[in-house]
Amino acid sequence: MLSEITVNLETNSYQIAIAPQLINNIGSYLQSLPIGNKIIVVSNTMIFDHYGESLIKAIEKANFSVSYKILPDGERHKTLLSVQKIYDQALENYLERSSTLIALGGGVIGDMTGFAAATWLRGINVIQIPTSLLAMVDAAIGGKTGVNHPQGKNLIGAFHQPKLVLIDPEVLKTLPHREFRAGMAEVIKYGVIWSDDLFQQLESAQRLDQLDYLSSDLLQNILTQSCQAKADVVSQDEKEGGLRAILNYGHTVGHAIESLTGYRLVNHGEAVAIGMSVAGKIAVKMGYWSEQESQRQDQLILKTGLPKTVPPMLKVEDILETLKSDKKVKNGKVRFVLPQKIGAATVTDEVSPEIVKEAVKECQEST
Amino acid sequence: MLSEITVNLETNSYQIAIAPQLINNIGSYLQSLPIGNKIIVVSNTMIFDHYGESLIKAIEKANFSVSYKILPDGERHKTLLSVQKIYDQALENYLERSSTLIALGGGVIGDMTGFAAATWLRGINVIQIPTSLLAMVDAAIGGKTGVNHPQGKNLIGAFHQPKLVLIDPEVLKTLPHREFRAGMAEVIKYGVIWSDDLFQQLESAQRLDQLDYLSSDLLQNILTQSCQAKADVVSQDEKEGGLRAILNYGHTVGHAIESLTGYRLVNHGEAVAIGMSVAGKIAVKMGYWSEQESQRQDQLILKTGLPKTVPPMLKVEDILETLKSDKKVKNGKVRFVLPQKIGAATVTDEVSPEIVKEAVKECQEST
Repeated sequence: MLSEITVNLETNSYQIAIAPQLINNIGSYLQSLPIGNKIIVVSNTMIFDHYGESLIKAIEKANFSVSYKILPDGERHKTLLSVQKIYDQALENYLERSSTLIALGGGVIGDMTGFAAATWLRGINVIQIPTSLLAMVDAAIGGKTGVNHPQGKNLIGAFHQPKLVLIDPEVLKTLPHREFRAGMAEVIKYGVIWSDDLFQQLESAQRLDQLDYLSSDLLQNILTQSCQAKADVVSQDEKEGGLRAILNYGHTVGHAIESLTGYRLVNHGEAVAIGMSVAGKIAVKMGYWSEQESQRQDQLILKTGLPKTVPPMLKVEDILETLKSDKKVKNGKVRFVLPQKIGAATVTDEVSPEIVKEAVKECQEST
Repeated sequence: MLSEITVNLETNSYQIAIAPQLINNIGSYLQSLPIGNKIIVVSNTMIFDHYGESLIKAIEKANFSVSYKILPDGERHKTLLSVQKIYDQALENYLERSSTLIALGGGVIGDMTGFAAATWLRGINVIQIPTSLLAMVDAAIGGKTGVNHPQGKNLIGAFHQPKLVLIDPEVLKTLPHREFRAGMAEVIKYGVIWSDDLFQQLESAQRLDQLDYLSSDLLQNILTQSCQAKADVVSQDEKEGGLRAILNYGHTVGHAIESLTGYRLVNHGEAVAIGMSVAGKIAVKMGYWSEQESQRQDQLILKTGLPKTVPPMLKVEDILETLKSDKKVKNGKVRFVLPQKIGAATVTDEVSPEIVKEAVKECQEST
């Protein structure tokens, strides 16, 4: 069971490989890439404890010179300070422009490692080995890298495509259930904006709230179709000039909720789930989407065990104010991604603050 | 007297405009670019005192919203810490992805501003207004941006092309003589590696050691031909995959000298002048270049008032060791740019340590 997806770009095309046991079989992938001999694996304590040794062994067996750097985990450590620790290791190991960083971890490790690779010697290679569902279907693909500014997430960053994305579904076994559900929010997103087929597969599943309930076939399908969706969009719009904006479905209000609750109350996936519910309501109000499909989306969110209710302590005015400082704002206008039908979405900056208010309020009142 | 040069790139082509009074006439350039309304000018105290007010006025007159950020001057401030101050200003001014940073200053300001632009919101616009000769003919063109790591220059950086480079030769009047000569080192470099014509113009000049001795025609020519050389090379090799390496002529040994003397004894241009003299001798020893042309180069260096002697306190073994940690090292081999004739150079990694030693020693003994 091996899926291989190509992210087609003008100059930096690369493969996403999805199969059990890929971490142990990284050697042949490394040997097929035009990369130099030196590799640094960047990870966090917990993930490295689980998978670090196997990975290092597999890399050594393929005759690469490898060292590793363990960084503290958690969004609050996604800072320039952590990136500087990667720089220091790069210096210590005399990395060259042909050298490679491997990110073994979730989105935080992937984003920081990608940013370090983007900016060390003006750009060295990076390989992503995402270990969370969220990172597998989203963060690891597409070349967005970055760290947080004290006053905003991902404000500092660069586009830097990986040379390879290796996805080993078996590592999800050690992922906490809540993190699994968070990743499922992005999977549902791809269903809504890109793939009717994926959406229907999710609807057909008995339960989606824990990995244990998914057959390995369904999991492989979910990963493959989600990665394919992301790859399709990124291939058509590498630097977020247009189409790629649809990937922000659910993220506009989602980011505002994360920011206003200090990134503690809800995690990213949960915020996106709530954001999708709000955006779905906006789409219905604007006449873009049918009430019935919006409800199908909300049912899927519920089945996955994700929230769809805006936290009651948040003031709708604060949400509107936060939307204005979002980095996706263009000429002062807030852009929303709105579904048109299951499997297709569009971007508009014509949503009035009143409609946003109404939708947010409905999502605060509903349970 | 206006020269316009195009840096032709696949996706980010841009103009270099060279003419007196351009700072006051920036308005029409800004209006012709596809940039948003918000601009931050980044500069240092001295330069901003001289030219800041005129620039800000001209920008406002063209109906852009402009603010500015003054950073401390000097290579030791070319750090992530300074870049963070630009980030903070960007946040305070709600910069959007279409917004623009303008670097008004020498290489330090240009590199930091470029890096901030490369990494804020994963890339916003930057316009370079170089105020030193070195920055005009080199740093401002080509998209190399970066800051120093405590243990090495420019180790942290990104490729990020400007939307425009504006060169106003009149600002050179306030440039210290030593800085002028430092810039002339790069001009001589273009003569040796790219333009026989430029080289001969320099040879024909009576004196080159102070700006005052240059006619405004000669100055315009020097700027135009140097920028054209850089633009030609960058157009053919945006990301330093091959040809662009020839721009490092004189820089291999030059960087080692700067590093070993703590960036205090000699400035960058002086180090490059010494490096060219060493590289010239290596080229002669390897049979690439004629003794006679190597001497013509050294005479031009002397006429410009630049040093060509390796500082006597430096040990040749330390220089060799430092060369190995240079970021241009590939597979452990040190690459040298060597002239073949005036106006043409090539890159080789086949220079033996013995030949480097001999050449360095000759350049230590000569006066």
